[in-house]
Amino acid sequence: MTEMTETASGWLAPEELESVRGRMPILYVDVVPVRVDDKGVVTHVGLLLRIGSDGVVSRALVSGRVLYRERVRDALMRHLEKDLGPVALPQVPVTPQPFTIAEYFPAPGVTPYHDSRQHAVSLAYVVPVAGDCRPRQDALDLIWFTPEEAASPMVQQEMIGGQGVLLKQALAHVGRLP
Amino acid sequence: MTEMTETASGWLAPEELESVRGRMPILYVDVVPVRVDDKGVVTHVGLLLRIGSDGVVSRALVSGRVLYRERVRDALMRHLEKDLGPVALPQVPVTPQPFTIAEYFPAPGVTPYHDSRQHAVSLAYVVPVAGDCRPRQDALDLIWFTPEEAASPMVQQEMIGGQGVLLKQALAHVGRLP
Amino acid sequence: MTEMTETASGWLAPEELESVRGRMPILYVDVVPVRVDDKGVVTHVGLLLRIGSDGVVSRALVSGRVLYRERVRDALMRHLEKDLGPVALPQVPVTPQPFTIAEYFPAPGVTPYHDSRQHAVSLAYVVPVAGDCRPRQDALDLIWFTPEEAASPMVQQEMIGGQGVLLKQALAHVGRLP
Amino acid sequence: MTEMTETASGWLAPEELESVRGRMPILYVDVVPVRVDDKGVVTHVGLLLRIGSDGVVSRALVSGRVLYRERVRDALMRHLEKDLGPVALPQVPVTPQPFTIAEYFPAPGVTPYHDSRQHAVSLAYVVPVAGDCRPRQDALDLIWFTPEEAASPMVQQEMIGGQGVLLKQALAHVGRLP
Repeated sequence: MTEMTETASGWLAPEELESVRGRMPILYVDVVPVRVDDKGVVTHVGLLLRIGSDGVVSRALVSGRVLYRERVRDALMRHLEKDLGPVALPQVPVTPQPFTIAEYFPAPGVTPYHDSRQHAVSLAYVVPVAGDCRPRQDALDLIWFTPEEAASPMVQQEMIGGQGVLLKQALAHVGRLP
Repeated sequence: MTEMTETASGWLAPEELESVRGRMPILYVDVVPVRVDDKGVVTHVGLLLRIGSDGVVSRALVSGRVLYRERVRDALMRHLEKDLGPVALPQVPVTPQPFTIAEYFPAPGVTPYHDSRQHAVSLAYVVPVAGDCRPRQDALDLIWFTPEEAASPMVQQEMIGGQGVLLKQALAHVGRLP
Repeated sequence: MTEMTETASGWLAPEELESVRGRMPILYVDVVPVRVDDKGVVTHVGLLLRIGSDGVVSRALVSGRVLYRERVRDALMRHLEKDLGPVALPQVPVTPQPFTIAEYFPAPGVTPYHDSRQHAVSLAYVVPVAGDCRPRQDALDLIWFTPEEAASPMVQQEMIGGQGVLLKQALAHVGRLP
Repeated sequence: MTEMTETASGWLAPEELESVRGRMPILYVDVVPVRVDDKGVVTHVGLLLRIGSDGVVSRALVSGRVLYRERVRDALMRHLEKDLGPVALPQVPVTPQPFTIAEYFPAPGVTPYHDSRQHAVSLAYVVPVAGDCRPRQDALDLIWFTPEEAASPMVQQEMIGGQGVLLKQALAHVGRLP
């Protein structure tokens, strides 16, 4: 869950965001991008490949903050375009109901989710994308995995902050947990 | 909820279906076809215009039976194609979870749903359709309504068997109940 | 959605909360307390009776902020106890998935929800309560309404900020929208 | 998914049920009984211990058919009482929406679910039970497992027909998938 353009928007200066982060839960969205067949069955899930400031490679969901006066749908579209590029053709769900929420706590172990920087509460959605995905910004690449691969220990151990658990919940929600 | 090609499929002769109908709950699907904007907000819902054997005009959801050895997704696709034609481009949901179930009882008043022919239990889904809709078979037309129109008494009173209630539940699920 | 004990908790001084309110979406929970029969059918919904600083009477859901390092479940329990008293015996849902989210915008008309003080995003839950309810603090009373009464224009027009719409969505979710 | 008292009800003779089973999907309910703490967190899931006609021991969910003119809620209550006894005090969910559906096909491999006797479509619910559970009829015992135990290979391999997958989906739905 990286912070990119939001603070450049003028709503909240970086130092203000840092100040708030230690005081309140911050609202996020998490998105699991998926490929579906012509009957809506999920065939693949997309994971971003990132390199942390410590050089460690990890795989991540599309994720980011909801801004002041920004609708959740607009936040979903913005982060999807930020991470997958402008021609991914995402189909944002018709219902605002997330399939679950993920509570990222600054202390590990309170919930399955952890973010040392902050207390973030994320609304999680599965979003089919039909177009070409061209990761931008700090993501190196986007790789598509089958549900079996995505739930495998190899992929799961490359995910951080509990996003591996969230990914398995998404697979369960779409009936594709192995 | 009309019975069309299913009994012609060879799995169940019409007289057999009649016999079973008085003995067991029959599994159905109900679909609310919708138009969405580029952020997934429902802008219109589609209702079929039907004329009953008694000459009465009514408005109806896409609806029909799930067949033996037919997956629910396949039933959704089959009924959508039957009622909206082959180029409607429906986006069947990624999750098999229906937004609700509708229990149509042969006696009125047990639930909000009623079907004098049978006890049917329907799995209800909202399905965005992006293409051209050309109703076939016994439907005269497909009309698109705004959420406000769809929830209005004028449209509601033209729906039968409790499908008006189901339509309002669908609007609530997508955050568009007026 | 009133602010009570939270700012007394030491995590955020009132003036800090005011400062943040104009900068970020604030995370809330909304709860529809319900009475159910022995088969889980909702028979009544509970609404708080409040008197605003302008003397206007209104009806409201149980509602409030999620605090820093507070789990959503704990926030639900805290606000339920705050508004319904210590012996209401609420049955908080097993799933963290809200039945919907409500996006309260400071400007009216962006969504069905409005809060002139802030941009609040609320996770909404239906919670059966089995015990005695004794409203505390700023609520005058808690009144139980049938689903039909709750959806009626008389009750709906006494609810503010879009909570009447949220209440109808809750009724739809439990299959009790008239 | 065993057939017990239903055919004794007079609605469908055993030979008729056999006849229908090869012709139509049969409507079922699957229930995952759970223990929760005072904040609604699932702490344990209950599994029935059964011995098949072949002497093989297996673990199973509470499961059974929905009868003609029986509401799904009534079917849930009936099967819960049948399998857990009269003082289990189940809290049937307020929403009729199942957390997922399970499509048991007579041929293995079509879906994750398999039932050689029939094509059954099951509505799946998680139900907290607060009272004493005393298995009756063909179940030997009811054992409570932590979420970690329930998702472990040892328990999973003792479940048949895909119910292990359904159990993991239930754990994901309540935010307790390890």
